[in-house]
Amino acid sequence: MPTRVMKFGGTSVADPQRIRHAASRVAAAKADGDRVVMVVSAMGDSTDDLIDLAKKISSKPAKRELDALMATGELASSALSAIALEDLGLRACSMNAYQCGIRSDGEFGHARIDAIDRASMERKIDGGVIPVIAGFQAVSPEGDLTTLGRGGSDTTAVAIAAALDVVGSGGCCEIYTDVDGVHTADPRLVPEAPRLTQITYEEMLELAVVGAGVMHERAVVFAQRYGVPIHVRHSQRFELGTMIQKETSFMESIAVIGCALKSDLGRVVLKGLPASADTQGVLFGAISQMGILVDDIIQNDSDQITHKFIDLSFTVDHAELPEVKIAVTRVLKSMGSGTMDIEIGLAKLSVVGSGMRHHSGVAGRLFETLGKADIAIRCIMTSEIKISCLIPQEHGKSAIRLVHAAFGLEQGERVTIERQLGRV
Amino acid sequence: MPTRVMKFGGTSVADPQRIRHAASRVAAAKADGDRVVMVVSAMGDSTDDLIDLAKKISSKPAKRELDALMATGELASSALSAIALEDLGLRACSMNAYQCGIRSDGEFGHARIDAIDRASMERKIDGGVIPVIAGFQAVSPEGDLTTLGRGGSDTTAVAIAAALDVVGSGGCCEIYTDVDGVHTADPRLVPEAPRLTQITYEEMLELAVVGAGVMHERAVVFAQRYGVPIHVRHSQRFELGTMIQKETSFMESIAVIGCALKSDLGRVVLKGLPASADTQGVLFGAISQMGILVDDIIQNDSDQITHKFIDLSFTVDHAELPEVKIAVTRVLKSMGSGTMDIEIGLAKLSVVGSGMRHHSGVAGRLFETLGKADIAIRCIMTSEIKISCLIPQEHGKSAIRLVHAAFGLEQGERVTIERQLGRV
Repeated sequence: MPTRVMKFGGTSVADPQRIRHAASRVAAAKADGDRVVMVVSAMGDSTDDLIDLAKKISSKPAKRELDALMATGELASSALSAIALEDLGLRACSMNAYQCGIRSDGEFGHARIDAIDRASMERKIDGGVIPVIAGFQAVSPEGDLTTLGRGGSDTTAVAIAAALDVVGSGGCCEIYTDVDGVHTADPRLVPEAPRLTQITYEEMLELAVVGAGVMHERAVVFAQRYGVPIHVRHSQRFELGTMIQKETSFMESIAVIGCALKSDLGRVVLKGLPASADTQGVLFGAISQMGILVDDIIQNDSDQITHKFIDLSFTVDHAELPEVKIAVTRVLKSMGSGTMDIEIGLAKLSVVGSGMRHHSGVAGRLFETLGKADIAIRCIMTSEIKISCLIPQEHGKSAIRLVHAAFGLEQGERVTIERQLGRV
Repeated sequence: MPTRVMKFGGTSVADPQRIRHAASRVAAAKADGDRVVMVVSAMGDSTDDLIDLAKKISSKPAKRELDALMATGELASSALSAIALEDLGLRACSMNAYQCGIRSDGEFGHARIDAIDRASMERKIDGGVIPVIAGFQAVSPEGDLTTLGRGGSDTTAVAIAAALDVVGSGGCCEIYTDVDGVHTADPRLVPEAPRLTQITYEEMLELAVVGAGVMHERAVVFAQRYGVPIHVRHSQRFELGTMIQKETSFMESIAVIGCALKSDLGRVVLKGLPASADTQGVLFGAISQMGILVDDIIQNDSDQITHKFIDLSFTVDHAELPEVKIAVTRVLKSMGSGTMDIEIGLAKLSVVGSGMRHHSGVAGRLFETLGKADIAIRCIMTSEIKISCLIPQEHGKSAIRLVHAAFGLEQGERVTIERQLGRV
């Protein structure tokens, strides 16, 4: 009998009616004879509302208390979801992190799950009761509630799926959300972008990092580590969504499976920094101390003869630029050498696909497509299965549609490698 | 060093500003060098809001889940209160029922506290940290959250005060609320009614039962059992309130310490019921099965010769009368004898005082006062320290003011027994 872990996000349990609908999905799975566990996020924006309340009381609320506070959102929605299941005539019980022994490393705000007491849930399931787990939280070694960071309920669901060995049972971890799966591009940018039936963990991670916000990165990393297949699907529709798994049936036969655009980036270009061992440490230490996340970093030696200076550039969210400027100016002054140039209004366009490991020509086709459209490439970054270009933001939306078309992605996973690389 | 358990009710933590104010009260106590524990209710009407949400999902939400749901209100306010304390520069930590080992008998909706792990709180206090306890909840033997019923946070506070032996330390349990203490009558009915500085548990219970809603009955019973003095005081003002304790300094020297009025009562008068052993059981069993609380029951033998029939009457809230009628009609039919008369529009006026044990003449003075004002007494009920009369509701408000004046209660606890009994 397959075990299914069914996780419903905040929009899927945002009000009583949607909670009832989510419960009906779980009831249908149970009626199929499957062993079912439900995992829920907090209702709609309730987590943000709780944080706002805390901020009205203190400008710097203690992390421990913020976690205790935020955890109440999922505690409430798990009880309400259990009520909805029981109203449908099923036996259900809400379970908090104490009750199902979800233990963490104790890091408030971004705890990691260390252990789960699978027996507590299995006793319920074996007794015909559907456990309804409050997502997003785990108990620290000291017995405090810790939260897992944004998207943490996805991680809860994956961890429970791993603990209950859903793979061995023939089931998977199902993430019910407000989109119908993972598309070849964000459908708001590329309306013709089809849904993929499958995608690998690696591809999903590359897409998540470049701005395709379907699944939270940490949950995918967790799923990859434990080999848990994730089925991302729409909570209000009944079609299948996208399976995120180790391998896809087409991962070697096509090169590019998706593309993404991340806008509102600024690029900081530094030249002539002293080539000492601690330069990068001092620079990015100063930036990270201001709580700023740096996107990509690219470094070249500028000075091939004396090796006394280095050039490097990095990208940040546009909104962070004023603070970055202050930090970098201070660092350059303390280093006694180097200049800073700042470029704004950039977007990062990326193409992703495991098939790049087997097929060359993707970069050429990408650059050619942009070149033909007269779109300047300011910077190129690659990984084994991804190529990204920084381009002027004003061309971002047209660029992603052109690239999507160039790789034949409107055909989704049915596209051929010949079509992708322009050999037909 | 005295230990003070400081409990703040829903109105006292209804919004961020009030939470900050409550925290400042706790901070002041801590600054005095006292050992402090804070206990909080859910914010304002949030418990009712949660119940409403559950009712939108199911007309009959499971009790277990309602408890898990309602408990989140206090969990949130304890975290927010700890945030407020830390913002004032103090060290504080919220504690839920799992963390401070508050164990219950497992009765959902009206659980009783069986045990508290005082060590968990003492470790915090000894380390200079203020524990902020989520009231109203306890963990069942199965590890589920159970709630203690309406007013349950008062019970939590009293139970913690008992566990921490506040009496032995020279402290007490302080209930911060939206009234300044217990008055000789409800000040909305009798504006001149002064606040009492002391009242006995017994007197408080008699007043609570007849409608003086300052303290929840169960918390007073708990305090009485464990000898915990309760200080009821206003959360926004700094004057002392009322101490609820075993004895008062004037309990033998004055007869009546307060009076109360309970309105909107109906009286059901039954005559000629069969005098069999199970008559009362069948009758009140049928009524209680409908979830109706019966107020007072008075029984007389109607038939002094054959002892074949009994007469009895009881009072219920006016709103319950239609259902009571249905239940009683059914019972009378099954018994084959008896008649029912219903009287509506009644109020119960009560005078309370431990001094009645030592002084006679209270009943006479009460009846005389009502008689002079031409207020008909429909029924009289007494306990050792209370006399109640059922009177027409239209006279209720004038009656309580007359009686308050007749016993000189505007002088509060400074009144003499001679003045009370009209001997001056």
